[in-house]
Amino acid sequence: MFTIAAPETESLSQIQDKINNKTKPLGALGKLEDLAAQLALIQQADHLTISQPHLLVFAGDHGIAQHGVSIAPSEVTTQMVMNFLAGGAAVNCFCRTSDMTIQVIDAGTKLEPADHPQLLKQRLGAGTADFTRQPAMSRDTAFQGLMYGAEAVARVHQQGSNLVGFGEMGIGNTSSAAALMAALLDLPATDCVGRGTGISDEQFEHKLALITRALAVHQAKLEDPLSILACLGGFEIAQIAGGMLKAAELRMTVLVDGFIATAAALIATTMYSAARHYFLFCHCSEESGHQRMLEHLEAKPLLNLGLRLGEGTGAALALPLIRAACEFYNNMASFSEAGVTV
Amino acid sequence: MFTIAAPETESLSQIQDKINNKTKPLGALGKLEDLAAQLALIQQADHLTISQPHLLVFAGDHGIAQHGVSIAPSEVTTQMVMNFLAGGAAVNCFCRTSDMTIQVIDAGTKLEPADHPQLLKQRLGAGTADFTRQPAMSRDTAFQGLMYGAEAVARVHQQGSNLVGFGEMGIGNTSSAAALMAALLDLPATDCVGRGTGISDEQFEHKLALITRALAVHQAKLEDPLSILACLGGFEIAQIAGGMLKAAELRMTVLVDGFIATAAALIATTMYSAARHYFLFCHCSEESGHQRMLEHLEAKPLLNLGLRLGEGTGAALALPLIRAACEFYNNMASFSEAGVTV
Repeated sequence: MFTIAAPETESLSQIQDKINNKTKPLGALGKLEDLAAQLALIQQADHLTISQPHLLVFAGDHGIAQHGVSIAPSEVTTQMVMNFLAGGAAVNCFCRTSDMTIQVIDAGTKLEPADHPQLLKQRLGAGTADFTRQPAMSRDTAFQGLMYGAEAVARVHQQGSNLVGFGEMGIGNTSSAAALMAALLDLPATDCVGRGTGISDEQFEHKLALITRALAVHQAKLEDPLSILACLGGFEIAQIAGGMLKAAELRMTVLVDGFIATAAALIATTMYSAARHYFLFCHCSEESGHQRMLEHLEAKPLLNLGLRLGEGTGAALALPLIRAACEFYNNMASFSEAGVTV
Repeated sequence: MFTIAAPETESLSQIQDKINNKTKPLGALGKLEDLAAQLALIQQADHLTISQPHLLVFAGDHGIAQHGVSIAPSEVTTQMVMNFLAGGAAVNCFCRTSDMTIQVIDAGTKLEPADHPQLLKQRLGAGTADFTRQPAMSRDTAFQGLMYGAEAVARVHQQGSNLVGFGEMGIGNTSSAAALMAALLDLPATDCVGRGTGISDEQFEHKLALITRALAVHQAKLEDPLSILACLGGFEIAQIAGGMLKAAELRMTVLVDGFIATAAALIATTMYSAARHYFLFCHCSEESGHQRMLEHLEAKPLLNLGLRLGEGTGAALALPLIRAACEFYNNMASFSEAGVTV
């Protein structure tokens, strides 16, 4: 489906020398040095640029939500889509302060939102099937989801963007992400299921039991990432995974948000391991399984602010750090330029 | 010297209600919610603003540097002042990307830098005395340092600023900050001394022995914060402490950078505990004692990027998060405004 190559590494020692010769002690800019080096490899350029950064927010509903595994009903997914389009959600606020363009995509909400000039409709259905009983979607639908996500990214790339972040909205989607994590990493559900945006002890036990059952129901089919996605995934998660893969193919920088976006990144990297090189992990969510997913991906996220909201909020908040890394890489003086004693 | 009052707290429940009614689960924006609430208390306003944010970078040299406790000689302090003025240092890069005005203050470097239109000279001497043998400065000089710092802040306040960050440059100043921490928190030197920007095991042992000796030499005088500052402090640390206190008096928001700026904040809050309400702690440094100082101040810093550079880099990098907190507080929709089901 995609042709993804890891960045060339011939320039790596030159990149590291450039960073080491900046007027600072070796390694003193911590994670920002790793970030600058990764961007320099992705862009294969001596001068780093962030052009037209976009945040794509994919919304989709989940059959499992009917079991009450979330703090809110499925209708809230569509209500929040309208809130995104009106500019009133947290992610809109953070895109404004980070100077990032937001694009909202309906990947398949239960209630179809009204048409809106800023809304891209790529609906795969009116929410997934209840994956505790049957596959969330067919393999064909999962494949179509990857393609839709790829198309959305190709469009912003054509507009001149070289950086794309991924966010989501979908009542029930921490259940889907936890199930995907369990299947992809071969972990018991108890290591993967968390409290989402804030469910009770009782809801948590119910959620855990449902996901444990779902993993047993689909066990025979959980062999390749597309089947896992079809059995346990979500329409928004499928489109995010496809978007991430297209972005990697186009050598764009990919900002990965929280638990659900990271589950999509896990699908993407399971399909194409080279995609990992293009991914920047923006924050560590409060959701209990996120830290473990990040460790599996050898990711050290930039922020740890106790967020548990999704929407792409962590990605939007991280963008200023990425601009800061570019600026020091491009314009900070070397010891010789500044006349500073080494 | 200063008249510092804690913010009025009558509006606290109203502030918390406003945050809780935003279109997100309770508490889902983590540290940004605490940040917004703190800013709302400081500003006593329903609409938060960040006006003309300034970063003040104070430079000073330290007599203890002659013992080789740093990776670089004292001359580098002045060289870095010139680098700041030329716009070439890390902190310049981050002030540019964060849209923050930088002001460099010579608080007393060993080599006096040439005059420069952007350099404010408030020299207390050509570096402090070697505090392993005698007080770093007199009590009068320490007092003058507080006043100089206060004047620098009063000036930016007059220019319309309501937020000021504090950074520093001074070869040897992690030694001074560690000694101040030990004296102010009554801790052994071994709990406070770290590796600065990257010294060897041998240098570290030497640094630890020197600071242990200095604490013994001055023991009888380490009773009030001004004496502690005079015995063990630095010219830049004295001016930062005075600047922070003036900012609190003027009800400005104070951005505290890393280990050295936090030592100054410790002096300031020991003198005037109410000043703490105006302080935002921007990052957790790699310097080993920093985490403990932050815990003492009940501070949960915004960033943890493995920085160990000082200069105010952490403060400049944190400013976009502060703008994000203001924006969500001001403009994020409530459940009723957005028509989202609670």
